Amino acid sequence: KYGGPEPIKTVINNGLPGGMPAWGKLGYLNKQEVDLLARFVLESPPSPPEMTLEKIRKSWKLYVKPENRPKAPANPNWENFFGVILRDAGKVAIIDGTTKELLNVVDTGFAVHILRSSASGRYFYSIGRDGRVTMIDLWMAKPDKVAEVKACYDARSVDSSKYKGYEDKFLIVGGYWPPALVFLNGQTLEPITMFSTSGYTYDTFEFFREARVAAIVASHHDPLWVVNVKELGYVWLVGYEHLDKGVISITPIATERYLHDGGWDATKRYVLMAANARNTMVVVDTVEKKMAAKITEGIGVKPHPGRGANIKHPKYGPLYLTGHIGDNTIACIGTDPKNYPQYAWKVVKIIRLEPVGGGHLFVKTHPRSKWIWADRPLHTDAKVSSTVYVIDKEKLEVVKTIPMPKEFPGRAVHFEYNKDGTEVWVSVWSPKDKKSAIVIFDDKTLKIKQIITGDWLVTPTGKFNVYNTRKDIY
Amino acid sequence: KYGGPEPIKTVINNGLPGGMPAWGKLGYLNKQEVDLLARFVLESPPSPPEMTLEKIRKSWKLYVKPENRPKAPANPNWENFFGVILRDAGKVAIIDGTTKELLNVVDTGFAVHILRSSASGRYFYSIGRDGRVTMIDLWMAKPDKVAEVKACYDARSVDSSKYKGYEDKFLIVGGYWPPALVFLNGQTLEPITMFSTSGYTYDTFEFFREARVAAIVASHHDPLWVVNVKELGYVWLVGYEHLDKGVISITPIATERYLHDGGWDATKRYVLMAANARNTMVVVDTVEKKMAAKITEGIGVKPHPGRGANIKHPKYGPLYLTGHIGDNTIACIGTDPKNYPQYAWKVVKIIRLEPVGGGHLFVKTHPRSKWIWADRPLHTDAKVSSTVYVIDKEKLEVVKTIPMPKEFPGRAVHFEYNKDGTEVWVSVWSPKDKKSAIVIFDDKTLKIKQIITGDWLVTPTGKFNVYNTRKDIY
Repeated sequence: KYGGPEPIKTVINNGLPGGMPAWGKLGYLNKQEVDLLARFVLESPPSPPEMTLEKIRKSWKLYVKPENRPKAPANPNWENFFGVILRDAGKVAIIDGTTKELLNVVDTGFAVHILRSSASGRYFYSIGRDGRVTMIDLWMAKPDKVAEVKACYDARSVDSSKYKGYEDKFLIVGGYWPPALVFLNGQTLEPITMFSTSGYTYDTFEFFREARVAAIVASHHDPLWVVNVKELGYVWLVGYEHLDKGVISITPIATERYLHDGGWDATKRYVLMAANARNTMVVVDTVEKKMAAKITEGIGVKPHPGRGANIKHPKYGPLYLTGHIGDNTIACIGTDPKNYPQYAWKVVKIIRLEPVGGGHLFVKTHPRSKWIWADRPLHTDAKVSSTVYVIDKEKLEVVKTIPMPKEFPGRAVHFEYNKDGTEVWVSVWSPKDKKSAIVIFDDKTLKIKQIITGDWLVTPTGKFNVYNTRKDIY
Repeated sequence: KYGGPEPIKTVINNGLPGGMPAWGKLGYLNKQEVDLLARFVLESPPSPPEMTLEKIRKSWKLYVKPENRPKAPANPNWENFFGVILRDAGKVAIIDGTTKELLNVVDTGFAVHILRSSASGRYFYSIGRDGRVTMIDLWMAKPDKVAEVKACYDARSVDSSKYKGYEDKFLIVGGYWPPALVFLNGQTLEPITMFSTSGYTYDTFEFFREARVAAIVASHHDPLWVVNVKELGYVWLVGYEHLDKGVISITPIATERYLHDGGWDATKRYVLMAANARNTMVVVDTVEKKMAAKITEGIGVKPHPGRGANIKHPKYGPLYLTGHIGDNTIACIGTDPKNYPQYAWKVVKIIRLEPVGGGHLFVKTHPRSKWIWADRPLHTDAKVSSTVYVIDKEKLEVVKTIPMPKEFPGRAVHFEYNKDGTEVWVSVWSPKDKKSAIVIFDDKTLKIKQIITGDWLVTPTGKFNVYNTRKDIY
C-alpha cells in the first residue's frame, strides 16, 4: 500500500510544498523516528468514535437561562461590536467597534473556525475545530458565554435561522466527524436532532462515509440553510420550517466536488460555492432549487472566496469576487441573469495580485466603500504575506498595496468592516510568542486609524462585525 | 463470536420455528456438511457489491419507445385488468378481469414482490427481489413489457408519481442493497439519479449502512412519495416536484423501528405504517409533516397490514385495519381526528381469527363491499393456511370461514377486488409442482364464481387490479 514506507519517509524528511515542514531535514525527528512514523502512517487507522444525540446532550451546558438574560442591550454600541477569533488560544475577544475597547475574552472551542451572528445580532455563535459551539450574549454588560455544547469531534461550520419568524430560534452545526448535521435550539444550544451526510458522490455514485460538511450559509428569503457536503459534491438546501417538531427537510443539489466555502450574491437568491479541488465555482439558485451554473472558464487554482465580495460595476452590473489559494488572481463573476444576461455566471474580469504565487484567502468589501480588499497570508514570501491589496471597484485593478507595520511580524489576514462601512479591520497573525495586532484602516484615506494590540491578542484571525454578519454584508 | 460453531450446528440440524427446515434431521445435509456450513456461516462476509448510476444505466433496456406505443387502449376492459405475480416463476400474468382471459405471461425479475400502476393505470411496474423493474404497457393488443432496468441487487418496493401534472412521469425504486432510492423516468425507466438511505437510527443515533427501504406509497395530494427506511425508523417524505431537474427533496420523520409495510387512510392525508419489530403502528401526517401518533395499545405481535383496509363504521367512523403475522388478531384503528377524535389513532376493536396462532398476511375490502377479507397463509396448520376469513364491516367479527377447493393443496393468500367491487380474487399458492389457482368469489353471495388455473399459473401470490391499484382503493 502506497509503495511501502520509503516514499512516506521521503515526505516526512523533506516536507510538502503545501506547508508541511521538513520534519527530518529540520531536525525535529531523527532517522529512527522518521522510520517509525512512516510505518505508523501505513497502519490502517481504527474507526473514529461515533457521536450520538445523547452524548451531545451530556456535553450541553446552559450557563445563563434565557429568562435570566438582560431584557435590553447594556451597551448602545452593541450592533458595532466585533468578535475576534484568537485562534491558537481557543478564545474569542469581544471588542466595541465604536470605542475600540476590549469588552471580554471568552474561552471557546479549540482553534475556532468561524463566528456567526443570530438573526437579531444579539448572539454570537462560535464553532471550534473540536466541534464545540459557544454562544455569547452581547446584551450583557460584559458580553459572555451563556451556553455551550460539543456537537461533534471535528467541525468547521455553524449558522443560525435568519428567516422572518425564525430569528434566533435554531442553529445548525456541520460536522467533519462524525459527518453529520446537528440541529440546536438557538436560545439555549439544547440539541434537537442530527442527520447523517454520508452518501453517494454526485458523479461516480461511490459511497462516502466521511462526507464532511464545509461551509453553511443561512437564507434570508426562505426558512433554509445552504450546506456544502464536501466530498459528495452536493449542496444541500436544509429547511427548518418544521424543526420545532424535530423535522428538517433536505433538497440535495448535485454540483461539483469538493465543495469548500462561498456565499450569497447581492440579492441573496443565488449562492456561489467553491469546488476547490476541481477549480470550479458552482452557482445554486435557491428559488428554483437547481444548479444555475458551473463556472470553470476563468476560475484559477483552488478558488477560496471565504464568503466572497459583492460589488455593483458600472459596465458588468452586479459581480461576485473570489480569490484563489493556488494563484494570484481574483475572478469577477457576473451575477445578474435578468439585467446583465451576457455576463451572468461568467468570469468577466481577472484581477492580478503581484507578484505571482498563491496564498490568498480573503476578499472583502462594503456597499459604501470604493474598494475591495484582498490578502495573501499563505504566500511563501513574508513580504507578500504581510501585505494587503486594495482594488478599485470600478477599474477592477489593484490601486495600492499596504504592508503591515514592521513591529508586528505576522501574516496579514482577513478583513471586516465596521457597521457604517468607514473602517476596515485587518488581523496581523503573528506566531503565538510574537506580537499580533488588529490594524484598523480609514477606508476613505487608506491610512491606519488605530492599532489594537495587547497580551491577550494571541493569533487573531477572523473578525466578525455584528451588523455585517447578521445582515450578510460582504 | 456467537459461541462458536456448536449452537449454529444445532440450528442447522433442527431448523427454526419461523420456517427454516431441519436441514440435518431431514437428511438434506450430512454431519460433515452441517459442520462445514456452520463454520462457513461464522466467516465475516465480504462487503456486498456497490451499484452506481452508470451500472444501472447499462442494465437499462427500452424495448418499445414511447412514440412507438399505441395511442389508445386496444382492449376496452383494460382498466379491469389484473396483474398476477407468479412468484417462483419470475413472471407476471396479465388477466382480463372482465372476460377472465389470460392475455400474456411476462418474464420479469426474480420473485416479484409487488406491482404498482402508473397514475393513469396504463402501465404496470413490477419489482423483483433481484432489483429488476419491468414496465408493462396495458394498451397493447397483447400487453407486454416495454422497458426494463436493474435498479439494485435486492429490492422490495416501487411506486409511480401520482400527483396531478406528474402522472406516469417518474418512478421510485427502494433498495435493500444497496440501501438507496433510485429514481427513474416513468415513461422509459431511464435512470435519473439515486440517493443513499444510510444514516442514523432515529432513537439511538447509531450509524447503519444497510438502512433498507421497505414499503413506498405515492401521495395523491402532493408531489411526494412516502418511504419507509426500515432499520432507521424514519419515514421519509420524498418530493419529486423538481425531479425533472434531477433534484429530489427529503423530509425524514422520526417514527419507530423497524418499518415494514402500510398504506393510506381513507382521506389519503395520513399514512399508517407497521414498525413490526416493536409491535407498533405509526401514523404520519403528510400535510403537517409530522408523526401524528405511535400506536402500541391493542396492536398485536408483528403487525402486517400489507397496504391495510379502510372502512367507514357506523359507530367508530373511518377505521384502518391491520392483521398480524404473530397472532390471530385484526386491529381496527380510528383514523378521523376531526369528527371522531375519541377514536382517532386508537385500536377501537380487536377482531379474532380462530384458531389461535399467527400466519396472517393480508386484509382487503372495497367501498362497495359489506366485508373485509383476511388470510393466514403462514399458519402452521394446513387447514388454516388454506382458509380465508370473511369479516362483517359493521359487526367487526368473522361471519364466515371459507376453505379453498380441495383439488388445490396450497395456501390461500392475498385478495384483490375487481374494478366495480363485486368480485374477490384469492390466490391458492401451491408448491411449484402442484396445481395452483385463482379462486374468484362473488362478493355478495360469498360463493365461488370462477376458478382460474393452468400450467402457466405457477405459485401465484399478489394480484393487482388496474383501477384499484392506480386509485389506491383498499
